[in-house]
Amino acid sequence: MKHITSADNSLIKKAASLKEKKYREKYGLFLIEGWRAVKDAISSGAEIECVLAEEGQESGLSQNLPELYVIPRRLMEKVCDTASPQGIAALVRIKRQQPGTLLRCLVLDGISDPGNLGTIIRTAAACGLKEILLCGCADPYNPKCVRATMGGLLHVNLFEIGAEEAINAIKGAGIPLLCAHMDGKNIFELEKPTDFALVIGSEAHGVSETFLKACDEVISLPMENVESLNAAVCASVMMYLLIHS
Amino acid sequence: MKHITSADNSLIKKAASLKEKKYREKYGLFLIEGWRAVKDAISSGAEIECVLAEEGQESGLSQNLPELYVIPRRLMEKVCDTASPQGIAALVRIKRQQPGTLLRCLVLDGISDPGNLGTIIRTAAACGLKEILLCGCADPYNPKCVRATMGGLLHVNLFEIGAEEAINAIKGAGIPLLCAHMDGKNIFELEKPTDFALVIGSEAHGVSETFLKACDEVISLPMENVESLNAAVCASVMMYLLIHS
Repeated sequence: MKHITSADNSLIKKAASLKEKKYREKYGLFLIEGWRAVKDAISSGAEIECVLAEEGQESGLSQNLPELYVIPRRLMEKVCDTASPQGIAALVRIKRQQPGTLLRCLVLDGISDPGNLGTIIRTAAACGLKEILLCGCADPYNPKCVRATMGGLLHVNLFEIGAEEAINAIKGAGIPLLCAHMDGKNIFELEKPTDFALVIGSEAHGVSETFLKACDEVISLPMENVESLNAAVCASVMMYLLIHS
Repeated sequence: MKHITSADNSLIKKAASLKEKKYREKYGLFLIEGWRAVKDAISSGAEIECVLAEEGQESGLSQNLPELYVIPRRLMEKVCDTASPQGIAALVRIKRQQPGTLLRCLVLDGISDPGNLGTIIRTAAACGLKEILLCGCADPYNPKCVRATMGGLLHVNLFEIGAEEAINAIKGAGIPLLCAHMDGKNIFELEKPTDFALVIGSEAHGVSETFLKACDEVISLPMENVESLNAAVCASVMMYLLIHS
């Protein structure tokens, strides 16, 4: 256990810089905040660079962590994105990987709101859906997105790839490509495939032409009164229906 | 059609004041923004006090509206809550009503985030679920909530009542009271009732003891890896399952 008290310390500066995407990319790290998220990261085997605990809170950690730094409240506030940080945070290594053989996966095509993206990742983790392909989405390691996943981020594999590359991986795996769209087959009348790639489009424009052209089935949620659903709601309802019903 | 150019005009002041709850309550009005919402309000028979159109945009309205005011861009920006208003808005009367005989309804128990509340109302409208009881929730006429409903607000009946009163209305109607909670019956194994009251709890604390004590069945979505789902996601998946499957 080490103590840091200066705002000029290089680790504090590095941790605080992770609010910005360019520094997350430079260091290959992102920040998680709060007791639940940090404990979840430890137990799920995420690659943790170091843990920052506020003075007096370090006893909340049951394990001896080699890279534990104790810092005063004012430095915790500098490092964290939340207005009232809980007093614990960790720097976690971003996994950069290529999709392997896909079986069940979610494809997010242009989800631009970090809150929506995080909410979708949270539901995917809840459904046990492991592989998520991100095509032109918000940065999943953005603090707002990380928070919205409520720990779900560490239970999924994220692949940031282009649409064409995603389609090739899906076709190569021989799984049906299902696109969520207004004028498709009612999902309640669909014979549910065991494995699939479910494509959810952007909040403003829906699924792009590239995916629509390549898709095996266009599927819809029945809908009255409104023209569309929130993207996170649509993704979540469809994941539950495809996986659990 | 009338023209207003002064920011001191009483109608402009009144319209701009509706961003605050106390003025929405004082006047019994709320503001809707954007073409889709205004056209939807006209066609759905909402009680419209007046329509405000930006100069040059009034021709976008197909009907002759008795209470149409044409205003310059700077006044539209003053009145609207969005950063880049579309150039059309309307003052709509808030319906204050008591629940009649309930058949299928949603009960929101302490949903405090206006975006979550609006997203739930949007899905309820999409599912054709008409009656929503609000017990200690955010104000549904808050601009952020109105926007998140994407027009759905005008297709549901909202009742702001206390928990005890809500339970009495539900018991009086003889419909089953279902509470969404972590440790309940898997909703996919539930024999779906035709009519029901579905209770969704707050983001932080879930369904309150008052409802849990009175409930006929505690129901859950199967979940791995995370401790809970976003409240709007949980409400939306359950509504779709209860109504459509």
